[in-house]
Amino acid sequence: MPPRYRSSRCRLPWLLLLLQALFLSRAFFAFPGARLTYFSSELYPVFQDVNHMVIFGFGFFLMVLRRYGFSSTGFNFLLIVLGVQCSVLVQDLLDLLDIQYSELGVESLAGAVMSMTAVVISTGAVLGKANPVQLIVMSLVELIIFHVSRCINSTFLQVPQNLTLMHVHLFGAYFGVAVTSRFPEPPPGLDKNRSTPKSELLSVLGTVFVWMFWPNFNSILAETKWQAVLNTYLALAVSAVAAFMLSALTSKDGKFRMAHIHSAVLAGGVTTSCTAEIIQQPWIAMILGLLGSVISILGSHCLQRCFNPPLKLQDTSGVHFTFGLPAVLGAVATVLLRVVEQGIIEQRSALPSLGFLIFIEVGAFCQTISTALITGLITGFILNVKLLKAVHVSKYFDDQFYWEVSFQMISD
Amino acid sequence: MPPRYRSSRCRLPWLLLLLQALFLSRAFFAFPGARLTYFSSELYPVFQDVNHMVIFGFGFFLMVLRRYGFSSTGFNFLLIVLGVQCSVLVQDLLDLLDIQYSELGVESLAGAVMSMTAVVISTGAVLGKANPVQLIVMSLVELIIFHVSRCINSTFLQVPQNLTLMHVHLFGAYFGVAVTSRFPEPPPGLDKNRSTPKSELLSVLGTVFVWMFWPNFNSILAETKWQAVLNTYLALAVSAVAAFMLSALTSKDGKFRMAHIHSAVLAGGVTTSCTAEIIQQPWIAMILGLLGSVISILGSHCLQRCFNPPLKLQDTSGVHFTFGLPAVLGAVATVLLRVVEQGIIEQRSALPSLGFLIFIEVGAFCQTISTALITGLITGFILNVKLLKAVHVSKYFDDQFYWEVSFQMISD
Amino acid sequence: MPPRYRSSRCRLPWLLLLLQALFLSRAFFAFPGARLTYFSSELYPVFQDVNHMVIFGFGFFLMVLRRYGFSSTGFNFLLIVLGVQCSVLVQDLLDLLDIQYSELGVESLAGAVMSMTAVVISTGAVLGKANPVQLIVMSLVELIIFHVSRCINSTFLQVPQNLTLMHVHLFGAYFGVAVTSRFPEPPPGLDKNRSTPKSELLSVLGTVFVWMFWPNFNSILAETKWQAVLNTYLALAVSAVAAFMLSALTSKDGKFRMAHIHSAVLAGGVTTSCTAEIIQQPWIAMILGLLGSVISILGSHCLQRCFNPPLKLQDTSGVHFTFGLPAVLGAVATVLLRVVEQGIIEQRSALPSLGFLIFIEVGAFCQTISTALITGLITGFILNVKLLKAVHVSKYFDDQFYWEVSFQMISD
Repeated sequence: MPPRYRSSRCRLPWLLLLLQALFLSRAFFAFPGARLTYFSSELYPVFQDVNHMVIFGFGFFLMVLRRYGFSSTGFNFLLIVLGVQCSVLVQDLLDLLDIQYSELGVESLAGAVMSMTAVVISTGAVLGKANPVQLIVMSLVELIIFHVSRCINSTFLQVPQNLTLMHVHLFGAYFGVAVTSRFPEPPPGLDKNRSTPKSELLSVLGTVFVWMFWPNFNSILAETKWQAVLNTYLALAVSAVAAFMLSALTSKDGKFRMAHIHSAVLAGGVTTSCTAEIIQQPWIAMILGLLGSVISILGSHCLQRCFNPPLKLQDTSGVHFTFGLPAVLGAVATVLLRVVEQGIIEQRSALPSLGFLIFIEVGAFCQTISTALITGLITGFILNVKLLKAVHVSKYFDDQFYWEVSFQMISD
Repeated sequence: MPPRYRSSRCRLPWLLLLLQALFLSRAFFAFPGARLTYFSSELYPVFQDVNHMVIFGFGFFLMVLRRYGFSSTGFNFLLIVLGVQCSVLVQDLLDLLDIQYSELGVESLAGAVMSMTAVVISTGAVLGKANPVQLIVMSLVELIIFHVSRCINSTFLQVPQNLTLMHVHLFGAYFGVAVTSRFPEPPPGLDKNRSTPKSELLSVLGTVFVWMFWPNFNSILAETKWQAVLNTYLALAVSAVAAFMLSALTSKDGKFRMAHIHSAVLAGGVTTSCTAEIIQQPWIAMILGLLGSVISILGSHCLQRCFNPPLKLQDTSGVHFTFGLPAVLGAVATVLLRVVEQGIIEQRSALPSLGFLIFIEVGAFCQTISTALITGLITGFILNVKLLKAVHVSKYFDDQFYWEVSFQMISD
Repeated sequence: MPPRYRSSRCRLPWLLLLLQALFLSRAFFAFPGARLTYFSSELYPVFQDVNHMVIFGFGFFLMVLRRYGFSSTGFNFLLIVLGVQCSVLVQDLLDLLDIQYSELGVESLAGAVMSMTAVVISTGAVLGKANPVQLIVMSLVELIIFHVSRCINSTFLQVPQNLTLMHVHLFGAYFGVAVTSRFPEPPPGLDKNRSTPKSELLSVLGTVFVWMFWPNFNSILAETKWQAVLNTYLALAVSAVAAFMLSALTSKDGKFRMAHIHSAVLAGGVTTSCTAEIIQQPWIAMILGLLGSVISILGSHCLQRCFNPPLKLQDTSGVHFTFGLPAVLGAVATVLLRVVEQGIIEQRSALPSLGFLIFIEVGAFCQTISTALITGLITGFILNVKLLKAVHVSKYFDDQFYWEVSFQMISD
């Protein structure tokens, strides 16, 4: 193996050491009041559920490639434990600027784990193409920018804190798509980016896990908790039915395709992420679940045929149509629902106020998407500079490049 | 591939669309009071556990066949998300007849998910033999009949609502056995209905999941919750020990057989499902767990040798001895325990009252079993009419018939 | 197959029957007051989490050997359901000596499941080498001795009850190492004790499960629950980062080794098990997590090269460095933290009292380790007498010796 790959790998432990030393020193200097917040929480069971969903669920959800199982689960795990610590640090710094005292409680950790969803989704887009050093740099940059984007939304556009966090899927998907567009395409003959029934079965295991914990994710910060849970559950149920329906309709011979099921069953959860707590009628949630599933499956056909090839964009686990498009739909739905709700309340011709509301809501989403796309492109450029030593395309999608695996892996 | 198979598959999406439209319109018209019930629940964590058990646990529990992994998990998931919506609708219609207003809360969804256990168990009996259209028709018919059977028990025989739900294993198993008896037998040379160590390992994963969540299942509607949890846990523990003991005793060479462990470890949970909350002494629960395990393993030998071959009955995942026989034992135990309890309370020679009690209890169980068997036979006939285009026996137990799987599946 | 193996296997069911009869009669005679304690608990969700961690998590954690998957999960499950019942019985007998009435509540079961962790850890050391009869004898002996050791610590050294339970990793690891040293070594050419990527993937699944539930395990008996949860979570996060860092540093070519990740990510949880509730500053927990990971990975290199070969000791799943060394580090940290805490409180030259405190703390840990080592050696001798018919070394690490597995296992 040429020495430059080895040196790339040898840089990783020192990066980890540096980051860990940084987090440790932060904990050492900035936690005098930590004691006080130790006792403040009833949130632990929900925190644990979100933790399950992100570490276990997404870890196995990403295990679609046939020779990339170790890296999918392992790097996902590494990024999350790093990112949670980093997220606490970033929150801390942003709080410092406001001259507020920071709190390290379960709430703060829960927010950190939820922010990590953006990183996990972006990781899905570059799955198998980025080496761990690139992944870590990407996730740190992404976390910081996501926090900044949330701050902009909450400060300038007065979006409530818990709603800004719900832009996490939107941000993660478009950031990931922008980053992956800067990576060189794998050669057409490469067959390592296929999935096998075995890898898909483990991936289904992860998907079912994520599906089951999604109501918790959407309701963790909601004020009307049960309403959020019930709406999300109904949306997820309808989008699961629609996923099977559309998969059979769009594939030849009327067979199901696991990749469709895989992405479309989750669409309902993504679509209702911003609206779960304000929907008053269950049928609205159900319609949103249905539309989310439709847009996800139709999107997967359109994007993979018309959009990705001309842009030379390869979105390994399809995060654009799994999370991106349903999140856009969710954003549109949020604007519509708020307008209808406000329109009903005001009744009189309060058009200026209505116009202002639309401006705010649309502005928040546009700000999130455009920030994600622009910073994603820049991050993509940075990740492919010589310094970070990108993986050669022939080494894409291969566990053997990062892990000491036994010989059998090849005949697997 | 002949066109009739294709047309059979092409019918599925339209059936799904029709059903989903029905559920949506129900939600649109009948939920004016839904808002009120959004806030009423402390039940969510338990609901989530039952959800885990049914979707994840049973989904992997059924993954015993070596080439049917996708369908086992996928169709189980599809049936549950359809069935939960349908179950809410049926409950609604039955409530309408009583001129009660329906409530859509977590309680209602929890009841719906628990009713789905009957469908999941029946699915196990026809696993690999029924196509998705047949499965959906079967599950809808079964859900409606199960609700009717519960109504009969609670209206005419004054069985409490939560106990009628506990007949779910009994109903599911005998309905499934009756349905599967009307399907043509697979040819003797077919080797696709074998299991491999890999499929069994995933199946064990599901079994352990189901095992761990069973105490929640038995206690969710119980009044004396901890008593139900503790009795179920002890019964499950004893039946797990007995499963290993009997598996070694009944197999040649004293080796364990995974299929035995698989079915008998759950017997304790099934046996105590009706009695977990009324058992006052832990040792009674332990004895029931032991007997459940014994009847399940002995039953598996007797049924597979003496009962199934003459009836040309093929019960793919053995639901008759896994759920049916332990549930019958549980029914007998319920009658005995109630009689003893009543006998102790009354002490005096109140024989007529005791006789009435026995009549009621025995009647409820007989009604459930006979309804299950008769309607199961009728459903089996309906499912095998030309219209629903049954799968040809040579296509049994094969994922490739329903899923776009890559070539490797064959060499798997 | 020679008849002596068959007879060895045929002895197992009778042993199980005998034990189960013993537990049943205990439940029959000694539970008159059981009713009273049925209602006393808010602990059930936490009990369930510990149950998940021990049965599901450790069951899959141990699935590292390529041809030993059934036995790893199956025997782990069997030992736990037996051990929980036995543990209740032992607690009962010890209570009887104190002439206290025993209680069977969820607390008692939770304690029993947690004690089983010692057995599960020891099982890891003899994984694939002991037959089920030996495992059952070992686990019964170990449970009784662990209870006695806890009694000594709490009676003579006044260690609080919940801290004595936290010696469970220390006891389990050293007992296991001592037992395995008395088993004959496998022949050098045997390749059945290797792992495959598939078995390692399932093992990672188990590890992630154990990792996620560890904060619950450490906090279940703690008084300052959230502090214990948060400290454990931080320690685990840091040790996960350190595991990746050190794995890349210590392996050639800078590749990760799954076995390292596997053992070192859990080190943080083990190290903070005794101190999670007394640590006042998060950075201390983080440092402990880091040191735990370091000692675990360095230990794995040292032990496997310098310590195990001369002692002819084969620790199949490396429990010595996964649980033993981090637990020793945790013990040292406990002593240091208590001394510093006490020193700060007293300030004045209360040296005698400080000396006494150190004596007590060090004494408790030394008592646990030495009891574990001595009784482990004795148990190892007992297990290898002719009567229990040890497995021949050529049959080590093989599912086919205990399970009816289909032919394909060989080509697996």
